[in-house]
Amino acid sequence: MNCELICVGTELLLGNIVNTNARYLSEKCAELGLSMFYQTVVGDNPQRLKKVVQEAMSRSDVILFSGGLGPTSDDLTKETVCEAFGISLVEDAYAKTMLEERMHKYGRKIIENNYKQVMVPEGQTVLYNHNGTAPGILIDKDNTIAILLPGPPRELIPMFEEYCIPFFKKRSNVTIRSIMVKMIGIGESDAAARIADLILNSQNPTVAPYAKTTQVHLRITARAENEEDCMALIKPVYHKIREKLGEFIYTTQENEEIEDVVIRNLKDKGLKIACAESCTGGMVAARLINVAGASDCLSESFITYSDESKIRLLGVSPDTIKAHSAVSEECAIEMAEGVARISGSDIGVATTGYAGPDGEDVGLVYMAVSCQGETEVLRMHSGHERNMIREAAALRVLFLVYKMLNN
Amino acid sequence: MNCELICVGTELLLGNIVNTNARYLSEKCAELGLSMFYQTVVGDNPQRLKKVVQEAMSRSDVILFSGGLGPTSDDLTKETVCEAFGISLVEDAYAKTMLEERMHKYGRKIIENNYKQVMVPEGQTVLYNHNGTAPGILIDKDNTIAILLPGPPRELIPMFEEYCIPFFKKRSNVTIRSIMVKMIGIGESDAAARIADLILNSQNPTVAPYAKTTQVHLRITARAENEEDCMALIKPVYHKIREKLGEFIYTTQENEEIEDVVIRNLKDKGLKIACAESCTGGMVAARLINVAGASDCLSESFITYSDESKIRLLGVSPDTIKAHSAVSEECAIEMAEGVARISGSDIGVATTGYAGPDGEDVGLVYMAVSCQGETEVLRMHSGHERNMIREAAALRVLFLVYKMLNN
Repeated sequence: MNCELICVGTELLLGNIVNTNARYLSEKCAELGLSMFYQTVVGDNPQRLKKVVQEAMSRSDVILFSGGLGPTSDDLTKETVCEAFGISLVEDAYAKTMLEERMHKYGRKIIENNYKQVMVPEGQTVLYNHNGTAPGILIDKDNTIAILLPGPPRELIPMFEEYCIPFFKKRSNVTIRSIMVKMIGIGESDAAARIADLILNSQNPTVAPYAKTTQVHLRITARAENEEDCMALIKPVYHKIREKLGEFIYTTQENEEIEDVVIRNLKDKGLKIACAESCTGGMVAARLINVAGASDCLSESFITYSDESKIRLLGVSPDTIKAHSAVSEECAIEMAEGVARISGSDIGVATTGYAGPDGEDVGLVYMAVSCQGETEVLRMHSGHERNMIREAAALRVLFLVYKMLNN
Repeated sequence: MNCELICVGTELLLGNIVNTNARYLSEKCAELGLSMFYQTVVGDNPQRLKKVVQEAMSRSDVILFSGGLGPTSDDLTKETVCEAFGISLVEDAYAKTMLEERMHKYGRKIIENNYKQVMVPEGQTVLYNHNGTAPGILIDKDNTIAILLPGPPRELIPMFEEYCIPFFKKRSNVTIRSIMVKMIGIGESDAAARIADLILNSQNPTVAPYAKTTQVHLRITARAENEEDCMALIKPVYHKIREKLGEFIYTTQENEEIEDVVIRNLKDKGLKIACAESCTGGMVAARLINVAGASDCLSESFITYSDESKIRLLGVSPDTIKAHSAVSEECAIEMAEGVARISGSDIGVATTGYAGPDGEDVGLVYMAVSCQGETEVLRMHSGHERNMIREAAALRVLFLVYKMLNN
C-alpha cells in the first residue's frame, strides 16, 4: 500500500517548530511496509487543506494527518476530511466522558469549544487519547484509509503505537521486524563502503544506514510470516555485518545508547566508575547520570579544565604536563588512573583536548580509560566544530569503556 | 509574495533524517516577509517531482527547493525544474573550475557524473557553493522565482544567507528586523497569557512565541524602510514586554544562550566560577565549557552524586544531610559555598535533586548560587521526565547566576 502524510499547522510553515512527527511517522510507515511518496505541510486554512486532501485521496491508499484537532475554530482537519469523505459528525459519549474527567482532574474549565473535540465521524473508529483532549480518528472507506492524529508528539506517538501499528500489522498479514546495529568509532561513508554489497543488494532483509552526527546506525529489517522467521532472515545478514564491522558495534537494541550499555555492564559486574574531564567538560558524566540507577555505579566525577586542577585534584605530575603538555597521551593516562585512585573506583575515564575554536591543534583529543588496573588510550583528531568534537570524544571514550569491560 | 517549499529526498520519506531545512527556510521566509503556504516532500522520482513542480508553479510566486542536486543519476531536481520552466542547461566554466579545485584539494577523483553538477540553466543565476560540489540555482522567469539549494544543511544555510537573503531584501524594498527575547523561569502559556494583548493585536511589529522545551522565546519582528525605523517600532513593544516579563529575560540576541551571557558577564567582571552538581551530573559545567574561552572563568568543577562525595569533596556537613537529606535547601547552600571555597572561585553553583524515574519526590530540585559571599537558593518541582528536569535545572541555575551578577 502506498501512503502519504499531511501535517496541518501554521507553526510549521512559520518555522516555529521542527516537524519531528514527519520523521517519526515516515520511519514507522517504512517499518510497516507502507511506501510513503509524499509529505505535505499546509496551514490552518480550509480551502488549501481541502485541495490537499482531495489530491491525496486521488493518489494514495493511506493518508496520515497530524495536527489541527484542537478545540479552536482554527482547527479544521477533522471537519475538512469528513467533508471530503462524505461522512457526518456525531457526538461520542465515551470521548465526552474522557474530556470531562480530564478537565476536572487538571482543574480546568470546559468551554463550549471543547465539545467540538468529541464530535467524531459516524461509523468510523475513534482513537481515544490518554495524553490530551483531542481523540484521533481512523476512517476506512471507499478503499482509502485516513488516520487523523493530534499534533503534539507526546500525544501522537502513543496513539500511533496503541492503535495504528496493530491495525496495519493485522491488515498486512506480514510480520516486520528490525534490529538497529549501533556503532561508534567509524564514519558513515567508511562503514557503508565496507558493506556496500549488503546495502545495495538488500531486499529481505533490507539494510539501511541512518545518518547520525557522531555515530553510525544500520537498520536491518525483515518481512516474514512471523517473528521467528523474521529473525531467521536477519541473523545471517547481521553476522556478515559483524564480520566486517564487529569491532565498532555496541548494541543492536533500538532504544539503547552507549551509556545504557556501559551502566548495564557495570551493574552486572558490580563495578564503579568515575570521570576526569577536561575538553568534554562534564558531558561524559552527564550521559552516564542520565541512565536511571546510575547512582549504583557513579558517586563522583571531576571536571579539571586547568593544568593546576589536573595536578591538584587528580594527582597528575607537573613534570608530565611540562614535558608533554596537558593534551597528551601521558596526561590522559595519569588523569584516568588518578581519578580511579582518588574516587576509589574500578574504572577511571579521562578526556583532554583542544576543542577550539582557535589554535593549531583544534580537534585533537586524547581519551584514556583505566579499567581494573589496565589503562588504554585513544587519540582522535577530527575536523568538526567545537561542540561536535566534544560530543564525539564523549561517545568514543564511553565506547572504550564498553570494549574494556567486555574483553 | 507567497512562497512554497519543495524538499526532494527519499531519505526524508523513509524517516532517516529530520527535515531541519524546512524549519530553517520557513523561519527565514517569515522573517523576509514571504508568506509560505505549502511544504512538500517528494522522493527522487522524476514523474512525481514534475507534477509537484507544475502544481507549485501554478500557485506560488517563489518556489524553494532543497536536495536532489547531487552527482548521481537519482538527483533530478535541476533537470526537472528546468524542463518545467523551458530552460536548457549549459556548462558553467567557473563552477567547473571550483569543482576540479575542490576534488583536487580533498584528493578525490572526478568521475564523469560529477560534471553533471556544473551544468546550469542558461541565462539564470548560479549560486556558487563554498561547502560542497553542487552549485545552487536562482531562476527568475515568467513572474516566478525558483531557488534550488543543496540538501545538506551545512551547504544550504551559508548559500541561503550569502545569496538569497540579500536577493529578497533588495527586491522587497522593505527592511525587516527582529529581536529574540529569551526567558527562563516561566512557562510558555504563562508568558503568553501575561502579554496576550501584545501577541493578539500585533501587526507591525509582530510578537510571536517560539516553543522551546525548557525556556520561552519571543520574536519581535518589524518592517520599515530602514533598520533604524524597524528598531524604533520594536523598542516600545520590547519595553512593554519588559514591564510584564522583565524578571525572566536574559538576552535579546538571537544567537546567545544563557551560558554565553554568563561567561560574557564573568569575563567582563574578571570573576571565576565552579560547579558542584548532583542531579544535573555535569550538564551545567558542560554548557559553560561549550562557550569558547570558558577556560578564563572556569578551571574545575565537581560532580558529587553520592552523599559521601558531597561531604568529602565539598565539605558539606554530615549533620546537614542527616537532618535535611541531600535534596534540601540546606545541602544545596553548603554545596555552592563549599565548591566556591575549595576551588578558590568567586561563584559556586550547586544542584541537588531527584531526577527519577522512581520515588515520591521525583522532579524536586534545589539549586544554589554563592556569588561573592552571598548565597541564594531556588526550589523547583516539575512534572517533566528525567532528562528534561535536569535540563530545566541547569538552565534555571545558570539564570540565577546571571541575575546575581547583574543585581
